[in-house]
Amino acid sequence: MYDTIIIGAGPGGLTAGIYAMRGKLKVLCLEKENAGGRIAEAGIVENYPGFDSIRGIELAEKFKNHAEKFKLPIIYEEVVGLDIKEQPYKVITNKNTYETKTIVIATGTRPKKLNIGEDKFIGRGVSYCTMCDAFFYLGKEVIVIGRDTPAIMSAINLKDIAKKIILITDKSKLKAAEPIMLDKLKEINNLEIVYNAKPLEIFGKEKAEGVKIDVDGEIKEIKADGIFISLGHIPNTDFLKNSGIELTEGGYIKTDKNCKTNIEGVYAVGDVCGGVMQVAKAVGDGCVAMANIIKYISKL
Amino acid sequence: MYDTIIIGAGPGGLTAGIYAMRGKLKVLCLEKENAGGRIAEAGIVENYPGFDSIRGIELAEKFKNHAEKFKLPIIYEEVVGLDIKEQPYKVITNKNTYETKTIVIATGTRPKKLNIGEDKFIGRGVSYCTMCDAFFYLGKEVIVIGRDTPAIMSAINLKDIAKKIILITDKSKLKAAEPIMLDKLKEINNLEIVYNAKPLEIFGKEKAEGVKIDVDGEIKEIKADGIFISLGHIPNTDFLKNSGIELTEGGYIKTDKNCKTNIEGVYAVGDVCGGVMQVAKAVGDGCVAMANIIKYISKL
Repeated sequence: MYDTIIIGAGPGGLTAGIYAMRGKLKVLCLEKENAGGRIAEAGIVENYPGFDSIRGIELAEKFKNHAEKFKLPIIYEEVVGLDIKEQPYKVITNKNTYETKTIVIATGTRPKKLNIGEDKFIGRGVSYCTMCDAFFYLGKEVIVIGRDTPAIMSAINLKDIAKKIILITDKSKLKAAEPIMLDKLKEINNLEIVYNAKPLEIFGKEKAEGVKIDVDGEIKEIKADGIFISLGHIPNTDFLKNSGIELTEGGYIKTDKNCKTNIEGVYAVGDVCGGVMQVAKAVGDGCVAMANIIKYISKL
Repeated sequence: MYDTIIIGAGPGGLTAGIYAMRGKLKVLCLEKENAGGRIAEAGIVENYPGFDSIRGIELAEKFKNHAEKFKLPIIYEEVVGLDIKEQPYKVITNKNTYETKTIVIATGTRPKKLNIGEDKFIGRGVSYCTMCDAFFYLGKEVIVIGRDTPAIMSAINLKDIAKKIILITDKSKLKAAEPIMLDKLKEINNLEIVYNAKPLEIFGKEKAEGVKIDVDGEIKEIKADGIFISLGHIPNTDFLKNSGIELTEGGYIKTDKNCKTNIEGVYAVGDVCGGVMQVAKAVGDGCVAMANIIKYISKL
C-alpha cells in the first residue's frame, strides 16, 4: 500500500517525486516510456529559470538524476486504468495492480496525427519529433506539416541541420505562443512556407517521398527526404475512461489551484491539465500537488 | 507606458520577466533591495528541480543572470502604492510614478519580529538571516529563537559553522514543512533545544549578549555570541492598502488558478500569495501569470 503513486515521470511527475521522497512518503512513480518526459524532444530550452540555455534532453536528464538522488522508485509499466471509487485506490498497469492512498496524474500529452497515410512510414521518412530525428536529415530537404507553435518550433529545430525546410500549413498565418518565435522564424533563410495548403496524402514506396497538397483547389506534389508532422499534442487521458475524473472539453484534466481533481486525493500536474504548457509550470504544479498531498496524508 | 510592470525580482518576478521579454512586451521590473530575492538567504537548496544541491545565493544569481540575458530592465526603487482604479494603472515608487497596462506583484515576504528589544542590536549580535550572517559566528555559540520550519532551517544552516547552537522555542514540539528536515535536525550533535520557553528580553550593552526566557514560570538568562530570530515571515503587502486588491486573513494576496487577483490585469506570484512557499512554485506562478498577461495584452 503506497502513500502516493505518481503516473508519469516528466518534469511535473519527477518534481512531485522529489517532494514525496523528501516528505518521506511511501511513493511509486510509474512511467510508460522514458523518465524525463517530452522535454527531451524540446531542442533548446531557454525559459526554464536557472538554465538560460540548455538542450531539452540534458534538462530531462537533470530532472531524472535529481529524482534518483532522492531514490525515487520508478517502475516502467503502462497505466491502463484507475479504480478510485473508494479507498484504497487502485492503479492498474499492463502488468500489475497497485494500491495507494493518493494519486498524481502527470501523463502529459502525445502528438496529434494527420491520418493521411503517414502510419506506414513512421521511422521511414516520417517523424513527429524534430529533436529526436532531425539529425537523420543533415544536409537534406525536409517538409514540416503543421500549424502555429509546434510547426514553428520544428522549423527552428531543423534550420541548422536541414539544407532546406518547406513548411506546409493549412492556415493563412502562423501564431506563436511567444512572439519571439516569429522573429526567429523570419530569420531562417533556408525556409519556404506554403500557406493555405491542405495535406491530402503522404506518398512513397519503401519510404515516404513527399506529400500531396491542395492549395486553393490546385493539387500539388511536394517531395523531400523527410517529413515532420507538427500539429501539437493531445492529452494522455485515455486510461481515465470511467474513472470519474472530470475532464475539460478538450480532454484535459480539470484541476483547482492546488492541482486537485474532482476526486479526493487525486491530483494532476503539468501538460495533461491543459492551460500553460511549460516546464516551469509543470514543475510548479508538481511541487504544489505534493505539498498538498503531504498535508492531506498527515491528516488521514 | 509599459505593457507590464513586475514588482519584485525574486524567483517569481524574474520568471515573469523572462517570459515577458521573450513575449516582446514593454516591461519594467522594480526591486527594493537585491535581484534574486530571499532565496539568496536559503542556505542549500535541494528541491528546485534540475539542481540537486545548490547554494541559495548561487541559485539567486542564476535567476538574475537568466533575466539579464534576456535584457529584463530592473530599476531599484521601492513601490509605495498602486493606483489601479482605472487604466492606465499607476505604480508609485519612492522616486517616480510609472504607467502600465498590467501588473505582476512578486514582493514576497519579510521576517517576523520578536519585538523584545532586538531592534537596537540588529547587526550587533542579532540577525534574521542565518545564511547572511552565520559565518560571523564561526566556532562560536549561537542562540536560535523560533518555531518549526524557519527555526529548523536556521539550526541546519548553523550546524557546521557554530560551535554550539541553542534553539529556544515556545512550542513543546517542532513541526517541519518536510519531514526529512526533522531527521536532519536530530543528526545535529552540537544542538540543544529548549522547549516551552517564552522569550522575554534580548539583553546586552554594546551588542546583544543573550536572551531572558520564561520556562514554566522560571526565569532564566541564556547567553551566546549571536542570536538568530527565526519566526517565519509576513507578506509584503503594505503598499496595497486602499488599492482594492483582495487579501486573505493572513494578509496574503488572493489569486485564482491563473495567478490573477480580483483586479483585471493585476496578477500576483510566489510567496506573497501564501500557500506553498517554494522556489519551484514561485517559478511556476511567474510563468503562468506572464503567459496569461501576454494573452490578455494581445486582446487589448
